[in-house]
Amino acid sequence: MKPVGPIPPGFDAIDGELAISGRRASEWVAQAGRTPLFVYSKAMIDARVAQLRAHLPARVGLNYAVKANPHPAVIAHMAPLVDGFDIASAGELALCVAAGIDPRRISFAGPGKRDEELEAAIGAGVTLNCESEGEGMRALAIGQRLGIAPRIAVRVNPSFVMTGSGMKMGGGAKQFGVDAERVPALARQLIAQGAEWRGLHIFTGSQTLSADAIIEAQGNVLDLAAALTEEIGHGCPKLNMGGGLGIPYFPGDTPVDLARVGDALTARVAALPGALADTALCLELGRYLVGEAGVYLARIIDRKISHGATFLVTDGGLHHQLAASGNFGTVVRRNYPSAIATQYGAEPTEEVNIVGCLCTPLDRLADNAMMPHADVGDLVAIFCAGAYGATASPSAFLGHGPAAELLV
Amino acid sequence: MKPVGPIPPGFDAIDGELAISGRRASEWVAQAGRTPLFVYSKAMIDARVAQLRAHLPARVGLNYAVKANPHPAVIAHMAPLVDGFDIASAGELALCVAAGIDPRRISFAGPGKRDEELEAAIGAGVTLNCESEGEGMRALAIGQRLGIAPRIAVRVNPSFVMTGSGMKMGGGAKQFGVDAERVPALARQLIAQGAEWRGLHIFTGSQTLSADAIIEAQGNVLDLAAALTEEIGHGCPKLNMGGGLGIPYFPGDTPVDLARVGDALTARVAALPGALADTALCLELGRYLVGEAGVYLARIIDRKISHGATFLVTDGGLHHQLAASGNFGTVVRRNYPSAIATQYGAEPTEEVNIVGCLCTPLDRLADNAMMPHADVGDLVAIFCAGAYGATASPSAFLGHGPAAELLV
Repeated sequence: MKPVGPIPPGFDAIDGELAISGRRASEWVAQAGRTPLFVYSKAMIDARVAQLRAHLPARVGLNYAVKANPHPAVIAHMAPLVDGFDIASAGELALCVAAGIDPRRISFAGPGKRDEELEAAIGAGVTLNCESEGEGMRALAIGQRLGIAPRIAVRVNPSFVMTGSGMKMGGGAKQFGVDAERVPALARQLIAQGAEWRGLHIFTGSQTLSADAIIEAQGNVLDLAAALTEEIGHGCPKLNMGGGLGIPYFPGDTPVDLARVGDALTARVAALPGALADTALCLELGRYLVGEAGVYLARIIDRKISHGATFLVTDGGLHHQLAASGNFGTVVRRNYPSAIATQYGAEPTEEVNIVGCLCTPLDRLADNAMMPHADVGDLVAIFCAGAYGATASPSAFLGHGPAAELLV
Repeated sequence: MKPVGPIPPGFDAIDGELAISGRRASEWVAQAGRTPLFVYSKAMIDARVAQLRAHLPARVGLNYAVKANPHPAVIAHMAPLVDGFDIASAGELALCVAAGIDPRRISFAGPGKRDEELEAAIGAGVTLNCESEGEGMRALAIGQRLGIAPRIAVRVNPSFVMTGSGMKMGGGAKQFGVDAERVPALARQLIAQGAEWRGLHIFTGSQTLSADAIIEAQGNVLDLAAALTEEIGHGCPKLNMGGGLGIPYFPGDTPVDLARVGDALTARVAALPGALADTALCLELGRYLVGEAGVYLARIIDRKISHGATFLVTDGGLHHQLAASGNFGTVVRRNYPSAIATQYGAEPTEEVNIVGCLCTPLDRLADNAMMPHADVGDLVAIFCAGAYGATASPSAFLGHGPAAELLV
């Protein structure tokens, strides 16, 4: 028997069925007209933003990292909720523009921005988080050609890392940003050559559950930003402090102690060094804003026994849930929070393997998990599906196509 | 320094540049109009099929596993080359039908076939590789409703496994097929209830480089098929023996000794037990047919130094090359065969990290690899990109979109 991860708070049962935003899973499936289906809860996104606003100092804004979930309805829902948007491609820029977001609220990070992407971003007035000296020079040349002063921040590759983070984005040799010691020279050069100076972007890691690690990283980021700003000799209009706040996926994971993070950040912000006195601060969050608000629903197509083990074969799979299948950035596969949506809250009575419909043994959604009895036609729910699900999975693999998506 | 995998034979240099099917990589890029680009070589696919035909007994047919590379031009090219097509979804059925392939040459495997997929397949005359008793009953019911005797084979979950295979598809509890001991009862029931009996499908593993392991598995498959056929009491019209032949990806990998495999199979086929005397035999191959014929080309967008390490940042990445990035079914990341396509054959002079354009540290294409000096604008080639590349990667991730594909 292998445990499943903790189901996020905020989900109820109605008539023995999982309810999302007050309606039963099967009703959302009926509305979408098919499974597999991602359902994203507006109420849970709103609650998470409100919780952050309650704990963070007012001075610290919230940016949404579009890559976590670029569904157009999610972006549009975020527009009035957050202060800024972080994009990673011209494709994401187009989605934000289509959602009516002012490009001046958008910043663009990514180590391999093509010239046409730089041109689209500069033309729209998006801030570039510049990842290298070479990219900075390309941006200046394109700005000159367009007759527009490019809005540029520099992304810093810090020498420290967020401890305990699922993905380290700094510390040592990295493809991201500019090594801290070279940042002042580059910033001064960009400013001297006519860029509109937008400040610094320092991203140190992601998917961290430890408040201590987050507090330490945020302190280091503020210290580094202050030191760099002093050395640059120009005020820092904006500091993107990165993100890093994780969500519990696996057995034993516990939520970030947001009150502690907020208190520590409030104290730090109250005593900011002079160099950052006029700096707009923001956190860049993706997974933390939307991850727990999403549920992936798939229908059981077959129930079969092999060598004494029970398999619930669904119409979903790793083509929509690559990370849950254990095949994206993980070494040891563990079970995401999961349930039989149409037997929600019922007593677990049997050990089952929930698998996808793909013809590969990699396509597993829950191994040896205790569940209530489920039959063909029942719905399976995989939780924590709101971020890095639909678009972070190989949806064309084996020709089943993308899942449906609903924001409700 | 980390070595890269062995570049498959068949690639030349023209004017210091990688040539594919007789033209330079940059010419194919110009024809496609953009990078990243998958180029698939017809000549290399043809050569591989010819090599197989030369070594395998004439009695053993070749099926193409469409999931390896479902690009429409590749499917169409395969149509006259192979004897049958194996599909894994109604989506792949539609691609085959669009390519003009007779549905009676097609068989459909997959543990989670939806009713509408069964209906499409039965209606078209495709053979179903039945994965469970429940699926068999659904197929019979749909056939009855349509007034068509469904063409059904049973997929067997054998108790043995192909040793040393990259992906084990048999042995122990699996979501694939029917445990061998239950196959005769199911087959007899299907035949009794009016199915057109098509035989057996026994898949034991994939991506094996050891001729011994393949020979042993093929022997076991023939023995099992003969024993099951005796017990079923009806002749076996067709036996899909599975595939399993791997291609070298990593340093130290050596190609399958096809002559040994062919000789052993020829001997086995010459002495087939009576139960299989009239059985059509086939191998189902995907990766082995097209994997080495494909090259992924990406352009270097930035060349940067971080903490003494050199990064070549390309416009490609794991959104097209998930397996090469080390994030699909691998525990330890190793370097695929790779090269600077526009400095092909030049002396390696520096250690570089070739990375993708995605804003995630998972996006690595070659770590600490020795390469000739390359600059912005040069093309990088990742080899062995013909199978499980374009569609087995999260092409929507971060909004850069799919790569271009050319069959040349």
